[in-house]
Amino acid sequence: MKKKNKKVNAAILIIGNEILSGRTQDKNIAFISNWLNSNCGITVREVRIIPDVEKTIIENIRVLSKKFNYVFTTGGIGPTHDDITSQSIAKAFKLNYGFHKEAFRILESYYGKKKFNDGRRKMAKMPSGAKLIYNPSSAAPGFMTKNILSLPGVPSILNSMIDNCKRYLVKGLKVHSKTLNLFTVESNISKKLEIIQKKYIKSVDIGSYPFFRLGKIGVSIVSRSTSKIKINQVHKELLILAKSKKIKILKI
Amino acid sequence: MKKKNKKVNAAILIIGNEILSGRTQDKNIAFISNWLNSNCGITVREVRIIPDVEKTIIENIRVLSKKFNYVFTTGGIGPTHDDITSQSIAKAFKLNYGFHKEAFRILESYYGKKKFNDGRRKMAKMPSGAKLIYNPSSAAPGFMTKNILSLPGVPSILNSMIDNCKRYLVKGLKVHSKTLNLFTVESNISKKLEIIQKKYIKSVDIGSYPFFRLGKIGVSIVSRSTSKIKINQVHKELLILAKSKKIKILKI
Repeated sequence: MKKKNKKVNAAILIIGNEILSGRTQDKNIAFISNWLNSNCGITVREVRIIPDVEKTIIENIRVLSKKFNYVFTTGGIGPTHDDITSQSIAKAFKLNYGFHKEAFRILESYYGKKKFNDGRRKMAKMPSGAKLIYNPSSAAPGFMTKNILSLPGVPSILNSMIDNCKRYLVKGLKVHSKTLNLFTVESNISKKLEIIQKKYIKSVDIGSYPFFRLGKIGVSIVSRSTSKIKINQVHKELLILAKSKKIKILKI
Repeated sequence: MKKKNKKVNAAILIIGNEILSGRTQDKNIAFISNWLNSNCGITVREVRIIPDVEKTIIENIRVLSKKFNYVFTTGGIGPTHDDITSQSIAKAFKLNYGFHKEAFRILESYYGKKKFNDGRRKMAKMPSGAKLIYNPSSAAPGFMTKNILSLPGVPSILNSMIDNCKRYLVKGLKVHSKTLNLFTVESNISKKLEIIQKKYIKSVDIGSYPFFRLGKIGVSIVSRSTSKIKINQVHKELLILAKSKKIKILKI
């Protein structure tokens, strides 16, 4: 994994009617986003969830590929008729779509020649030039085409193979975060918080999120930055703000 | 609620760094999507998750507003500096941004004149002409601007007020679904499934989703359509397919 001392970003494209319809609760977005930031210093800047429609997949692949350093797709790389991610990515970049030799070999040896039927063979079809993302749990590999990394939609399988994406990614600056949980309401601190945010506008993102805990209302103030020093400066100012307003702090 | 005997669609725009960063697991997408389909016959066709950045919000509001019948935004309508949804929507449509008289009155009477500070007043600021979406749990209303319905990000509050969106929505055709859970693997049925899908290509969407239950691998076949008759026809063909391959059915 190469290092790059600047911000590297990514988008996630969730392909699947089952997430859009609300039938299935997505679990991949938070997992991928956390993994990318902690392991690669890559920040997810946009997520889209779209249906299994070829034209829609092609459009989104083209737009997101240009806008972000990397795009992670999930879903649509299995053996059935509604798995059209690979062929759509090939079309998006006008690449041929056919058997990837190594993927074919991996799948054939996993299933055995007799059980390697058409459905399973389909999982070895990829855009030409694709680089494999190995799958330690169910063999069928993911793949990288240009700056698009395609993973399966089943969370347990995705989780087992994401480390194999690392070799293809340029490392960026990790975004650190620090949370201060205050037993107060947002409107009590919003004015001062805005002043602190303006002071650190170039280096720290300060987010404010209401919570309910131990029967009380509170606000989590989350400071995010690539600089730990700046985060600690903001944290000190937040502690002063809390003290001046006599706000109790929730220690976890 | 008016009725319309055709397909009505929507997009969801989740505004918030906390979801993008993976700090918070989204719960609103599945809830809104299910609610819209069951109560209003409206199908969600796209979801986007974007950061609290004005330019990005404006761009997405404009694009999604044109592409879909309705757009539901969540997040960014609270009292703090990172709550910029209302002002961004005003800018997207070149509308004035200022106090909504009724929202001001609701919030003032909820908090009492003395406690109605600047942060709380901010929640009464909306794009001009906005229609209120009443909030029975914490007073601060959501609002509708053109075809955009803006709701808060906190799931419990969003859930409590979503029924108040109904009066503004044109009802479409409900998408029904039927699921058949088969104890088999996708590649065993993918060929026949494709033939059935092709036969019903104009009326039924057939999705195939692997599952793990009772220690066994299985596939959920989900048929979706606005026609119950067509769904039942597909279901019969799926039962014939299962019988011909001696596949056990998981009855729930």
